[in-house]
Amino acid sequence: MNHLVQRRILPWRTARRTFSSSHHHRTIHPLTSLPPRVSPSYNLRPTATLLSLNWPSPPRNILITKKKRTPGITASLIEYATHLSSTYPSINIILEPSSASELHADLPFPVYTWDEPPWNATPELLSEKTDLVCTLGGDGTILRASSLFSHAATVPPVLSFAMGTIGFLGEWKFNEYKRAFREVYMSGAGDAYANLSFPTPPALPTNTENASSDPLDTPLSYADIRGMSMGSNRTARILLRNRLKVGVFGPDGVRLNNSSSEGDTYALNEVIVHRGSSPHLKIIDVFVGGRFLTEAVADGMIISSPTGSTAYSLSSGGSIVHPLVSSLLLTPICPRSLSFRPLVLPAETPITLRLGEKNRGREVEVSIDGKRLSDGMGVGMEVRVLGEEVRSPTGEWRGGVPSIVRGVEGLEEREEDHWVGGLNALLKFNYPFGDQDGHR
Amino acid sequence: MNHLVQRRILPWRTARRTFSSSHHHRTIHPLTSLPPRVSPSYNLRPTATLLSLNWPSPPRNILITKKKRTPGITASLIEYATHLSSTYPSINIILEPSSASELHADLPFPVYTWDEPPWNATPELLSEKTDLVCTLGGDGTILRASSLFSHAATVPPVLSFAMGTIGFLGEWKFNEYKRAFREVYMSGAGDAYANLSFPTPPALPTNTENASSDPLDTPLSYADIRGMSMGSNRTARILLRNRLKVGVFGPDGVRLNNSSSEGDTYALNEVIVHRGSSPHLKIIDVFVGGRFLTEAVADGMIISSPTGSTAYSLSSGGSIVHPLVSSLLLTPICPRSLSFRPLVLPAETPITLRLGEKNRGREVEVSIDGKRLSDGMGVGMEVRVLGEEVRSPTGEWRGGVPSIVRGVEGLEEREEDHWVGGLNALLKFNYPFGDQDGHR
Amino acid sequence: MNHLVQRRILPWRTARRTFSSSHHHRTIHPLTSLPPRVSPSYNLRPTATLLSLNWPSPPRNILITKKKRTPGITASLIEYATHLSSTYPSINIILEPSSASELHADLPFPVYTWDEPPWNATPELLSEKTDLVCTLGGDGTILRASSLFSHAATVPPVLSFAMGTIGFLGEWKFNEYKRAFREVYMSGAGDAYANLSFPTPPALPTNTENASSDPLDTPLSYADIRGMSMGSNRTARILLRNRLKVGVFGPDGVRLNNSSSEGDTYALNEVIVHRGSSPHLKIIDVFVGGRFLTEAVADGMIISSPTGSTAYSLSSGGSIVHPLVSSLLLTPICPRSLSFRPLVLPAETPITLRLGEKNRGREVEVSIDGKRLSDGMGVGMEVRVLGEEVRSPTGEWRGGVPSIVRGVEGLEEREEDHWVGGLNALLKFNYPFGDQDGHR
Amino acid sequence: MNHLVQRRILPWRTARRTFSSSHHHRTIHPLTSLPPRVSPSYNLRPTATLLSLNWPSPPRNILITKKKRTPGITASLIEYATHLSSTYPSINIILEPSSASELHADLPFPVYTWDEPPWNATPELLSEKTDLVCTLGGDGTILRASSLFSHAATVPPVLSFAMGTIGFLGEWKFNEYKRAFREVYMSGAGDAYANLSFPTPPALPTNTENASSDPLDTPLSYADIRGMSMGSNRTARILLRNRLKVGVFGPDGVRLNNSSSEGDTYALNEVIVHRGSSPHLKIIDVFVGGRFLTEAVADGMIISSPTGSTAYSLSSGGSIVHPLVSSLLLTPICPRSLSFRPLVLPAETPITLRLGEKNRGREVEVSIDGKRLSDGMGVGMEVRVLGEEVRSPTGEWRGGVPSIVRGVEGLEEREEDHWVGGLNALLKFNYPFGDQDGHR
Repeated sequence: MNHLVQRRILPWRTARRTFSSSHHHRTIHPLTSLPPRVSPSYNLRPTATLLSLNWPSPPRNILITKKKRTPGITASLIEYATHLSSTYPSINIILEPSSASELHADLPFPVYTWDEPPWNATPELLSEKTDLVCTLGGDGTILRASSLFSHAATVPPVLSFAMGTIGFLGEWKFNEYKRAFREVYMSGAGDAYANLSFPTPPALPTNTENASSDPLDTPLSYADIRGMSMGSNRTARILLRNRLKVGVFGPDGVRLNNSSSEGDTYALNEVIVHRGSSPHLKIIDVFVGGRFLTEAVADGMIISSPTGSTAYSLSSGGSIVHPLVSSLLLTPICPRSLSFRPLVLPAETPITLRLGEKNRGREVEVSIDGKRLSDGMGVGMEVRVLGEEVRSPTGEWRGGVPSIVRGVEGLEEREEDHWVGGLNALLKFNYPFGDQDGHR
Repeated sequence: MNHLVQRRILPWRTARRTFSSSHHHRTIHPLTSLPPRVSPSYNLRPTATLLSLNWPSPPRNILITKKKRTPGITASLIEYATHLSSTYPSINIILEPSSASELHADLPFPVYTWDEPPWNATPELLSEKTDLVCTLGGDGTILRASSLFSHAATVPPVLSFAMGTIGFLGEWKFNEYKRAFREVYMSGAGDAYANLSFPTPPALPTNTENASSDPLDTPLSYADIRGMSMGSNRTARILLRNRLKVGVFGPDGVRLNNSSSEGDTYALNEVIVHRGSSPHLKIIDVFVGGRFLTEAVADGMIISSPTGSTAYSLSSGGSIVHPLVSSLLLTPICPRSLSFRPLVLPAETPITLRLGEKNRGREVEVSIDGKRLSDGMGVGMEVRVLGEEVRSPTGEWRGGVPSIVRGVEGLEEREEDHWVGGLNALLKFNYPFGDQDGHR
Repeated sequence: MNHLVQRRILPWRTARRTFSSSHHHRTIHPLTSLPPRVSPSYNLRPTATLLSLNWPSPPRNILITKKKRTPGITASLIEYATHLSSTYPSINIILEPSSASELHADLPFPVYTWDEPPWNATPELLSEKTDLVCTLGGDGTILRASSLFSHAATVPPVLSFAMGTIGFLGEWKFNEYKRAFREVYMSGAGDAYANLSFPTPPALPTNTENASSDPLDTPLSYADIRGMSMGSNRTARILLRNRLKVGVFGPDGVRLNNSSSEGDTYALNEVIVHRGSSPHLKIIDVFVGGRFLTEAVADGMIISSPTGSTAYSLSSGGSIVHPLVSSLLLTPICPRSLSFRPLVLPAETPITLRLGEKNRGREVEVSIDGKRLSDGMGVGMEVRVLGEEVRSPTGEWRGGVPSIVRGVEGLEEREEDHWVGGLNALLKFNYPFGDQDGHR
Repeated sequence: MNHLVQRRILPWRTARRTFSSSHHHRTIHPLTSLPPRVSPSYNLRPTATLLSLNWPSPPRNILITKKKRTPGITASLIEYATHLSSTYPSINIILEPSSASELHADLPFPVYTWDEPPWNATPELLSEKTDLVCTLGGDGTILRASSLFSHAATVPPVLSFAMGTIGFLGEWKFNEYKRAFREVYMSGAGDAYANLSFPTPPALPTNTENASSDPLDTPLSYADIRGMSMGSNRTARILLRNRLKVGVFGPDGVRLNNSSSEGDTYALNEVIVHRGSSPHLKIIDVFVGGRFLTEAVADGMIISSPTGSTAYSLSSGGSIVHPLVSSLLLTPICPRSLSFRPLVLPAETPITLRLGEKNRGREVEVSIDGKRLSDGMGVGMEVRVLGEEVRSPTGEWRGGVPSIVRGVEGLEEREEDHWVGGLNALLKFNYPFGDQDGHR
């Protein structure tokens, strides 16, 4: 079935087409034309360590990102976006500029995107419009999606689908996408949606030809949701991943704006200071809680979140820290010392890396979640890092990257932990050697 | 107010001397004859990470412990106890049974102690009577003092004096003892003591012979305190060190009582499962949050608190974790695996170590804070560990080992961190090697 | 019975088949009745790193050892011994005492063994009588077989068969045993055997029932060998594994004899000094080349050969050292230091571990290749270690444990390295984590 | 006394000046005008692990290099060169081009140098003319001096003086320079020089003004040496440091010439393959002995000599290997694996690092002893490394970097090991932490 045929047999599309002009779809719209963002709340469930997701009203603006340079994923994105658009008529699809220009002609509905910002900057409007982020790819794709919100204090929930190998960040399998999205879309509806007054969507004509036996393919309107009775156990599970707040400051203490945005940059994994292609070891003064800790002579330094503890920090000898441990990791890269053991510090402790006067040669490179700052860091400059607080003084959960975690079948609620699975499957954690015959 | 006047209004010293017969002091009393414990509260100060100590009324029952087998320390204990007894007349001195029988004849006041309990058990009454613990020795002495409260949910504040090398746990220098004790004794008096109604002590006769120029030697009565105006910055600083709750269970799931007490044992540093003198590697199933994590084939396993991260866990390759990071460390001892990296887990995650069926040879040894359990652990037995919560659901701070931390002169309040000092001075953290001339 | 007598009554192969119920076989003979040992020479081949095995005359006395407590292996031992006995009539089978008493009634030929020596001692005659050692089991079995020669300067070649998982020490698969033994038996025959004058063995009667199509089952006499033309590439490949020479000395410098034997003990893997079940860290003075190196405060110390670098030393953080690197490894076990990195030292450098005066509590345990010395080591005692020289000043190869290494099919001679295979298959060396998407 | 005066009163200088023309000194001469190189032999002493240095005739052409960008060292170089020139009249001083042009006007004798070669190339004639290298600086200066001979199979002996902190490579203190040089200059003279027939040098007039009480300042002629009776213990001690032979090859297997020279480059410390400023992990296929070992996904790889084991390899987690262990180290830099433990391989095993097809982004950087190759390494290219053999098949010692090692006073000959001293003084090896009170 080709797209043209498909579009013809999708009556609600026709309805919409009536509403919009015929050149409306297959076009690219700016973010400004989207309705404002719907922000969910997160609640701690009594017996669980994960939070539950509660939408005040159904999410509408869905950003879908995909792994780059991987042809097979494009087809999956088309399939996924088409499913969302046909099953959830009120949904608007946002794509990255490159995806939008590549795919809009193949999609039977309009897509929204933004102007590509200057190098390494983030699209400013995005965080004001996006209700939910869906990623198709691996951990790198999640990291890149997270970077789109690196200047936003509030990141929308992220639903991730692994394409190929399952990553460490708790991705879903792509063949679960219908069930996964439905669970996310409905999450909290039992509590919240029933009390809302939705506008009645245009009636959908019957479409017998396209009838699917899968109820997850049935177009879902607000009206449908209103009547549904959902148990509280149907809420999506959220792991609120702390980020790092990173600021770069000149020798005069003035903040350097890395992009068009003001203020701190948030990192999901880590900030790295590295000699790059300079042949010289770097001499970095490390301050913890405002107090001088040590002078690191090394290839570089990593300040990592617990989420990042299984990334570069692990390669450099850091411990593996569970994402629910509120902390920062300070891990040296190839230090000129036998005794620089990695440190795990309280998330609320400010850490400063200062490039001291003794350094020779070129400046050091600074990377935040794998994105190199356009300018390196020179003598006297500082990187200041603080862990993000994900609980307000009044006990409200907020901030962080809200990762929608896949449940593990057959496990009690409190035993759910994709992290344990990831350790074994991905890190090949604790593979034994030798035979069992040994003496000590 | 000069101290002559002060001494004149303290008649109770004379009264005491008159009242007590010569055989009264220099005797050993049981704990039962002590007044009940005075428990302080701990409050978070706005700009600090440490808590402040607040006594509802001055502490009276002071336990003093000392490092064993170290002759010089005995003289210090006599000096210290004598100072407390003469300067703070309402104070009662508790000594360990061995110290009590060794020293009571040399002390011009009665001492309190308890009957030596069976091997490795803890004295039950102790936690009901002790207001404050003072230790003279190193980190090992603090650990041993903490073990005296290993079955108590609430440990009194601990004031530690290093005798010789400064330890990692934030000890004070012994020559500071007068100032240190005064600060602790008075802590919170500005807020609390002033509102109390103390009985007026009997007047003290003038004693010119014993005049000291040091105001810290002046006997201090409740009445004195009542009139004092103390700034809030005079409160002692408390680091509430999380402990581990440890239970040992038989193959049938029945708790094994390790001593006369029921219930969990608390550990300040770590619980260790080790092959001991068995030549065979041990096979230990590790469960995290109720879910099977891995089968460890190793000499043993360590579950450590952040405080213990600089003890055995560090020797075994664990990271250094700041005591304010609410977490547990899972560190293998000489694992038969290239890929068993140490883990840092949330304090509230239950961890279980189970001795699997595959094990050969003798049972494994279990040690809690360096104290070997009298019986080892056989096949099917489990060690279950949970981090202690030091903040109640209502936000109250409690539990843990309240360590009285020495301030660092010349540092802002929020920059105080004995831990940073300890890293550098004790761990020889990050000592560089080679010359600064190197290329990469 | 001397061996002249024995050979005279041995047209025994014929006899045996004719009257198999004689009480002569199925008996256990002492080692003394065996002919003296045949010692091979080892030669470096021009393009290879391994040596070639050259028998001056065919091996006759074959020791077979097996993994303990593993029922399936007993059947394999019977199969293997029966094959050797029927195919190589001049061969005598030596079993360990426990195997001999367990199996001799099931074997249609006599077996040789020795009296069980006192605990941990080695059978003295064994090294004077054994031409070849065959092991059925894993690396632990090889280690135990090697320990039987721990007081002998010259160990016979060792042919190892893995039963179950392939070990790290280059075992053959058991189903290769006929080809493997033939290759070893004939090794060097092209050069040496042809020049020898063998007595003609009695003709073998035809046995049609037992006819095998496998030429490796054909009984092989000296006469057969004499006529064979073997290429030089048919020699077995030998890896001469350096051992450690270990001596234990009292505080007075007098050697302590660990068993009935005088002199040094040889270790294939390592010597370990460990606190055992003592709760106290041990303080061990380490001397390298006669010069004080450091004071180790640790659970213990390992001095390992390169062969042992993949055993306990690896668990303790040591590097992996190829068995052809002439060296000793000095690896601490859980040291109280951030900066005690493992050392690799020249094999010819003497290393001394001395238990210093500062130690408290019980003595330390000393283990050589997993065998605990009956007495531990007290204050002032020393363990002295030196790498074994496997090349004499005149260039002759000797000493060490001559391991018969399995060739790898399809590889050039010089590329053969079971070690590379072992790294990947056994150590799970370098299993990657995460996806390939990562940035740095 | 300033230089001008000094020069005027040095009679042998006058003599020489008579012989040469007045514009001869203070000038720069090309290396071509020097006499050919005098190559020493190295002999193993019976009871020692170090070699002894034996000149066939006294060294004449002395290269002096110094640490760059360190003003104080220039004065030391002038002092040292002037001492050599005035005390050993037959000596010719070679300086690096930059030093020669900087200093020749201040030196009362001619200096020799070469034309600065193209970037990173080595001066071809240098190894044909240099008898002895003297370095003033730290380990980096020795490394740089060694790089001047990175295309020469035979490096002259290197006498190193530490300026400031003592380095790891066994430097002498600068204030020992007179004694040190005399020992080196005379080394082996007892055996060799006495049998040589030297031309009689021009007689030295008496110079009472300049008389020094130090016999080491007395001008020394060949004639003097001839009559001297030297004990064998007066020979200088040589540590022959193995180097790595490094070749870089294109995807077609054709060797890439890194400079004007053909053939391999020798490295004293290590060859490093590193991602440099590329953000992508590199995927490097590692072959050992021609056999595929593993695919390394990492920031880079280090192949190091034992001498280099205390440099970058140590920072990356490698073991410390004594320079007399004939070996190569394979150490990954921040590998994406929990199980890539560093390897120690036989020096004679060829190792190949191949940049596989999977790599993305920029090429990798290749550095040899800290010198970056002008071109990086692209997909399909290989770095091939082999340890240098320092003993010929006939037992002769040759090759490597002959480091003249400072003896340690008060130690027996066989106990001399600057390496043990370096471990403790430089690496801060095994600094203990905590107190001695601990339990396990």
